[in-house]
Amino acid sequence: MKIAVVRETRPAERRVALVPEQVAKLIELGYEVAVEPAAGERALFSDDQYRDAGAEVAWGADHAATIVASVQPLERERLQRLHAGTALMSFLPTNPPDVVRSATRAKLTIFAMELIPRISRAQSMDALSSQALVAGYRAAIVAAERLPRFFPLNMTAAGTVPPAQVLVLGAGVAGLQAIATCKRLGAVVKAYDVRTAAAEEIASMGAVPIELELGTLDGPGGYAREMTPERAQLQRELLTPFVAAADALITTAAVPGRTAPMLVSRSMVEQMKPGSVVVDLASEQGGNVEGSVAGTELTIGNALVWGGANVPSQMAGPASRLYGQNIANLIRLMTRNAAFDPDFDDEIVRGCCVTHDGSVLHEPTRELLEGRPLA
Amino acid sequence: MKIAVVRETRPAERRVALVPEQVAKLIELGYEVAVEPAAGERALFSDDQYRDAGAEVAWGADHAATIVASVQPLERERLQRLHAGTALMSFLPTNPPDVVRSATRAKLTIFAMELIPRISRAQSMDALSSQALVAGYRAAIVAAERLPRFFPLNMTAAGTVPPAQVLVLGAGVAGLQAIATCKRLGAVVKAYDVRTAAAEEIASMGAVPIELELGTLDGPGGYAREMTPERAQLQRELLTPFVAAADALITTAAVPGRTAPMLVSRSMVEQMKPGSVVVDLASEQGGNVEGSVAGTELTIGNALVWGGANVPSQMAGPASRLYGQNIANLIRLMTRNAAFDPDFDDEIVRGCCVTHDGSVLHEPTRELLEGRPLA
Repeated sequence: MKIAVVRETRPAERRVALVPEQVAKLIELGYEVAVEPAAGERALFSDDQYRDAGAEVAWGADHAATIVASVQPLERERLQRLHAGTALMSFLPTNPPDVVRSATRAKLTIFAMELIPRISRAQSMDALSSQALVAGYRAAIVAAERLPRFFPLNMTAAGTVPPAQVLVLGAGVAGLQAIATCKRLGAVVKAYDVRTAAAEEIASMGAVPIELELGTLDGPGGYAREMTPERAQLQRELLTPFVAAADALITTAAVPGRTAPMLVSRSMVEQMKPGSVVVDLASEQGGNVEGSVAGTELTIGNALVWGGANVPSQMAGPASRLYGQNIANLIRLMTRNAAFDPDFDDEIVRGCCVTHDGSVLHEPTRELLEGRPLA
Repeated sequence: MKIAVVRETRPAERRVALVPEQVAKLIELGYEVAVEPAAGERALFSDDQYRDAGAEVAWGADHAATIVASVQPLERERLQRLHAGTALMSFLPTNPPDVVRSATRAKLTIFAMELIPRISRAQSMDALSSQALVAGYRAAIVAAERLPRFFPLNMTAAGTVPPAQVLVLGAGVAGLQAIATCKRLGAVVKAYDVRTAAAEEIASMGAVPIELELGTLDGPGGYAREMTPERAQLQRELLTPFVAAADALITTAAVPGRTAPMLVSRSMVEQMKPGSVVVDLASEQGGNVEGSVAGTELTIGNALVWGGANVPSQMAGPASRLYGQNIANLIRLMTRNAAFDPDFDDEIVRGCCVTHDGSVLHEPTRELLEGRPLA
């Protein structure tokens, strides 16, 4: 029963799949843990901290592992070195067909963290939520730092400085956390989301929910459904005056596995005031803001437009702590009678499993692969 | 009765001495106001906004002005073009002897904004305080943005992320505003100041005052006095564990017109944790942190060290609004029977006046100039 924690290889990935204090708890649960050298370095956890927690620090930890934990999916070459039956836990963001094919052929079991069902029993394993929390906080702080004015109202002997006006589009976990952080800083916050439940959640964070004459768009799993082009255009028109009035705009509307909806056109940004700031958390999925580029700050009209790229990695320490907790809780769920023994009848286990024992269990992935030979 | 607002010429200076809404109020008071083209541009106030407020927008506004308002002191060549009796209002930060000599010879009246007495009647004119407020807020936001972790405690389904530990050294206006902003964001804040009154003020902002076994150092005007090298060394030793424990360190200890005290040595910074952030607002006065450089981000040990350079200019809009209010209030004080008629028996007028009618009224400046001929 060995858990291997690999060192992430993608340049932009600073997180690590387990942090030292979680290693210690998994060892108590009966596991051995092996961590690749410098795996936690960019999240500010040292090899010594892992050793102190009881882990072995060594290369090739994954070769004889029961579970290989990572943030990003393993590269294809690496998969080919693993034993049949090894369980992989990671995000599988673009669901790469070659990784799935290789894993199926090698009889590896893939648990994809973004497929954890959004049911209350699975909240403690919900890595999309935990990472969205980090991204939402960071979006608010980036906006506050880029905006050349105060977020809070300031009443001084020399007079009053009005608070900043912030507009948040998309009120999922990231959007609500952005709202909460902007409110903490004293900004006046308005927010909009296409889902019915959002208005109440927005209001509960102290922000003003914007209601457009559009109706709602509730989709499965607590996400929004896509909308028709006509409706999207009308939505942009109705949002235009709110965007123009905002000092800072934060967009967080993402539909997993799909291109992000374009909520704000270039001409809407061009109507913003001098010194305005736009933070687009959906840039990597195509952007909620037309013209935003992931990992880049650029100017559109009078506004500085910041495009997010792997935003949770920008706060790699806490992001890893939360992600690692999700991983540890998933491992705990799959540990029965002191053995790693996932119950494939369990809704959570079944829900996040992509491949197992030579089969593709995840239906959308199977459909994606159908018609293409598994070679 | 004409007030001229000049366009600042120093590259790092983005502020403007009066903003449009203040122009409108001074016009109500009986003044004409002339603003140089693009004077407010970098603080995001347009020429049209000044025109709409009733100002004339034209070059050379200062030639026939009663009052010339600026943020930085005018250049010497510019002084020589002014009529005798013109009143100048600006900061006079390094009290440059050649400017004072030129102004004296030309019988100009200089009111230096940093010399406004720190009495309660003068609070609304206290430009050092208003600009320190901006700098203190900005210091906290910069620290939050540079720190790769949360300021607030986060309790999530996946577990708890502890709040950041912030240490603020110097608890004047800037330090207290930095504390307030860090507290808003949910950080745990400790703070230290050499002055007696500071502990209570620190506690009133929700931070923990650090008390060292040193006694206090109260100086005139609400500032701290300088201390002996031995005492400074002991203070550094006693502060060392607090610096080492901090995730973010913000230093704000400045004594006007003097080199800032070195509160934190390089070896103290070297004891900080990986990912730590240091924001030194006193960098331009030599720095509270050994090795900090104004306008630069550099690494010392594990810490990112941000040296402030004209920090209020980084939020030029609100900084100008507050500074302009200070200027407008000073002009209002000096306006009697609908005329610009400063009462040199008034403590505030007398206190901030450096030169008038061919004499140097400000004693320290006169002492500085003594022995050097006024040519």
